[in-house]
Amino acid sequence: MADEAAVRAQAEAVRRLKQDKADPDEIAKEVAKLLEMKAQLGGDEGKHKFVLKTPKGTRDYSPKQMAIRERVFNAIITCFKRHGAEVIDTPVFELKETLTGKYGEDSKLIYDLKDQGGELLSLRYDLTVPFARYLAMNKITSIKRYHIAKVYRRDNPAMTRGRYREFYQCDFDIAGQFDPMIPDAECLKIVHEILSDLQLGDFLIKVNDRRILDGMFAVCGVPDSKFRTICSSVDKLDKMPWEEVRSEMVGEKGLSPEVADHIGEYVQLHGGLDLIERLLQDPKLSQNKLAKEGLGDMKLLFEYLTLFGITGKISFDLSLARGLDYYTGVIFEAVLLQQENDHVEEPVSVGSVAGGGRYDGLVGMFDPKGRKVPCVGVSIGIERIFSILEQRVEASEEKIRTRETQVLVASAQKKLLEERLKLISELWDAGIKAEVLYKKNPKLLNQLQYCEETGIPLVAIVGEQELKDGVIKLRVVATREEVNVRRESLVEEIRMRTSRR
Amino acid sequence: MADEAAVRAQAEAVRRLKQDKADPDEIAKEVAKLLEMKAQLGGDEGKHKFVLKTPKGTRDYSPKQMAIRERVFNAIITCFKRHGAEVIDTPVFELKETLTGKYGEDSKLIYDLKDQGGELLSLRYDLTVPFARYLAMNKITSIKRYHIAKVYRRDNPAMTRGRYREFYQCDFDIAGQFDPMIPDAECLKIVHEILSDLQLGDFLIKVNDRRILDGMFAVCGVPDSKFRTICSSVDKLDKMPWEEVRSEMVGEKGLSPEVADHIGEYVQLHGGLDLIERLLQDPKLSQNKLAKEGLGDMKLLFEYLTLFGITGKISFDLSLARGLDYYTGVIFEAVLLQQENDHVEEPVSVGSVAGGGRYDGLVGMFDPKGRKVPCVGVSIGIERIFSILEQRVEASEEKIRTRETQVLVASAQKKLLEERLKLISELWDAGIKAEVLYKKNPKLLNQLQYCEETGIPLVAIVGEQELKDGVIKLRVVATREEVNVRRESLVEEIRMRTSRR
Repeated sequence: MADEAAVRAQAEAVRRLKQDKADPDEIAKEVAKLLEMKAQLGGDEGKHKFVLKTPKGTRDYSPKQMAIRERVFNAIITCFKRHGAEVIDTPVFELKETLTGKYGEDSKLIYDLKDQGGELLSLRYDLTVPFARYLAMNKITSIKRYHIAKVYRRDNPAMTRGRYREFYQCDFDIAGQFDPMIPDAECLKIVHEILSDLQLGDFLIKVNDRRILDGMFAVCGVPDSKFRTICSSVDKLDKMPWEEVRSEMVGEKGLSPEVADHIGEYVQLHGGLDLIERLLQDPKLSQNKLAKEGLGDMKLLFEYLTLFGITGKISFDLSLARGLDYYTGVIFEAVLLQQENDHVEEPVSVGSVAGGGRYDGLVGMFDPKGRKVPCVGVSIGIERIFSILEQRVEASEEKIRTRETQVLVASAQKKLLEERLKLISELWDAGIKAEVLYKKNPKLLNQLQYCEETGIPLVAIVGEQELKDGVIKLRVVATREEVNVRRESLVEEIRMRTSRR
Repeated sequence: MADEAAVRAQAEAVRRLKQDKADPDEIAKEVAKLLEMKAQLGGDEGKHKFVLKTPKGTRDYSPKQMAIRERVFNAIITCFKRHGAEVIDTPVFELKETLTGKYGEDSKLIYDLKDQGGELLSLRYDLTVPFARYLAMNKITSIKRYHIAKVYRRDNPAMTRGRYREFYQCDFDIAGQFDPMIPDAECLKIVHEILSDLQLGDFLIKVNDRRILDGMFAVCGVPDSKFRTICSSVDKLDKMPWEEVRSEMVGEKGLSPEVADHIGEYVQLHGGLDLIERLLQDPKLSQNKLAKEGLGDMKLLFEYLTLFGITGKISFDLSLARGLDYYTGVIFEAVLLQQENDHVEEPVSVGSVAGGGRYDGLVGMFDPKGRKVPCVGVSIGIERIFSILEQRVEASEEKIRTRETQVLVASAQKKLLEERLKLISELWDAGIKAEVLYKKNPKLLNQLQYCEETGIPLVAIVGEQELKDGVIKLRVVATREEVNVRRESLVEEIRMRTSRR
């Protein structure tokens, strides 16, 4: 009943017009509209109808989707733990002012809570700002932590491509004053490990530095006041050709064509250590303090990445800008590459699956004395990865088990419910994963069918004769093999047979 | 700066008065108040000050708290999986109307989102209503699932006792049309397993049935219209003595003293199969259809619980009412008992740690044709359990590891950062959990100290001589034992030494 909300909004509009003592004609017009909307909704206003849906841009996870989701989480958490990370959690909402002034233009996408008295609250927009608030609040100056949780953005959802209004972020961050580029290099190593591990296909990690971008804008002649807005034009280069970005710079943002062309020369560059060396010799860039610092650190970063053996998938790319305001140094973004084919010369990017960078000023924004804690971190684009893997599972018709049950406790004859319950209780108490059908007298065939459908490998069958003999019949679903096992050995036998799988 | 919110509220009040063209004197008075509040706030209004706190009734989880939390979750999830449960997830918010009319008086505790255009949303209040919505929406008529997620209630927080506005629920539910009381008995078995497993001390699971309560009210002469409100008075018996509850029934709710006394005779009863048998013979109750049904099922339940061997911790308790509107049959609640001592005759309950019951009508409220899916489920009070375990850890001074790192890659001399990075990269790629200090030339002592502090058991020390010899020095932190290990055997050696722990 999407219309009910519209009717309510219209009623509210009418109420406000009346309160504001607006022009009576205008009020009459809006009242007429309200009545028409109510009529469309149907006569049975009194009878409450439920809309059977989740809110726009959100979804439920079915058991099958949860199984895939947990696989992906496990791969990512294993990597984070391999790198010695701790884990924290923060509330789903923050004080509204905690989020204010951190996201630039995107602030309009923040979900606010209704003012029901007390504090003004907003749903978290990412995990980085709550992390910075956590550090400042607890005066923590050094930590390596991960945080996996849902964040909220009132964006236009594109759910088939994994873009939701409620979605998971998987963040790994290193906070603290350290020697340059060692934590930064570790973040890139982590992205490399996770994307390799998940076998999503070929990928490329683009790297740049906010200081190089700002230095480049300065030497090209961009006025200081336009750095941010020109930066956000550059950020569109992964989706638009240079010509369009150029005309946005010149047309909408009032840059002179010469300055734009100058930027154009730089932002089309990408490469490795060789390019860094070349730019360090660039007569203009090398004269800019910020650019020189950024290029020096970029060189150091590439040396460390060489030691990690991962430069093959890293590209220093001057067109990488990234949207968020809070970055201060290295920035990076990992994209999956389409499978190459004969018609396409260069592999085409199909979308970002991880991103991050250095944000040395954010914690200081929360500290009463402005004390800074340098931070660098990476966020894994889990929803996109999840979409890809889900589609792959659908395509492959792989059967995913959604429960871990080892054995079904069944009976061959009637009137054995009590015996089934006694046996399953013994198994549960011994730590065996077991199920029983909730029926007094189920048919053996139905019980076996249930195992086939749900992938339960073993059936422990209680029968009158077996009870007298002190044994249980154990059936292997896949092979239909049946053996009598002494009741006191049953747990051991089930453990042995299911650990071998 | 709690006052900033107050100033904002005051400014908004002034704005509204002006908009409503209120009495000019009143406006002037409120403006003066606003100016005074601003003055109190200090002159530097322009400079934004942050309030460094989490919203009222919420908290962050530190790495140490997360370690305890994950222990508890693991115990609970292991139990749910042992019983063959699948897992689902739903969004943190629902359409507002999905929650409407499900929680009776408690509806006022629901968090609403601000109307920013589009649908009206509310944060979920529990996991049961979203589960029912999920079943109806996907036309699922049979499922056994668990769901662990945060829910939201604008309640008065009592955080030391584990009562928060944002808190976890751990729900296990069985939906489907089955033979009576088998799933209900399994839910109680699960509570028994989890509370035993977590070793929280002695506990008692109280059981009752809404039909027995309603039947009892009927035979005592409570008017139909007062069933719900009298039920909620009975619900207070775990916190108030009978005398107070009685005077609430008679004074506030207008019950006649005779009817109240009659109820009083029943609600002070508790026991086991014997009590059920006695009530089945009760001349009045046995004549009431609902009560008879409820007592019959209660008897069956106790028979199954006897087979599970858990009746020792179960008490059929006529004073158990439970607050929520949607229960239709069996209800239950587990409480921890204080350690007995000589001065107290009966163990005293210190609080509920699990609860649940049967709700056969809830899914039907969402189905367009009102088709019912019978459900029974249990919710584990994880926050309370977590508080108890956290206090226990604090008291015991047990050292909790918050990361899993097996080895620190260290160096004894300067200028070995590159070698450290090369070695740690090899270890990461082999799946070893390893850390390195982010310093070019750290002192060996500092590196060893880091291991002591964080509980890392091994140090792999890179040295110039060792590099020439093709070995790494492996040091056991606890014993200070050092051995040279050939580089190609290092991974195997670390695995062996850390799996033995």
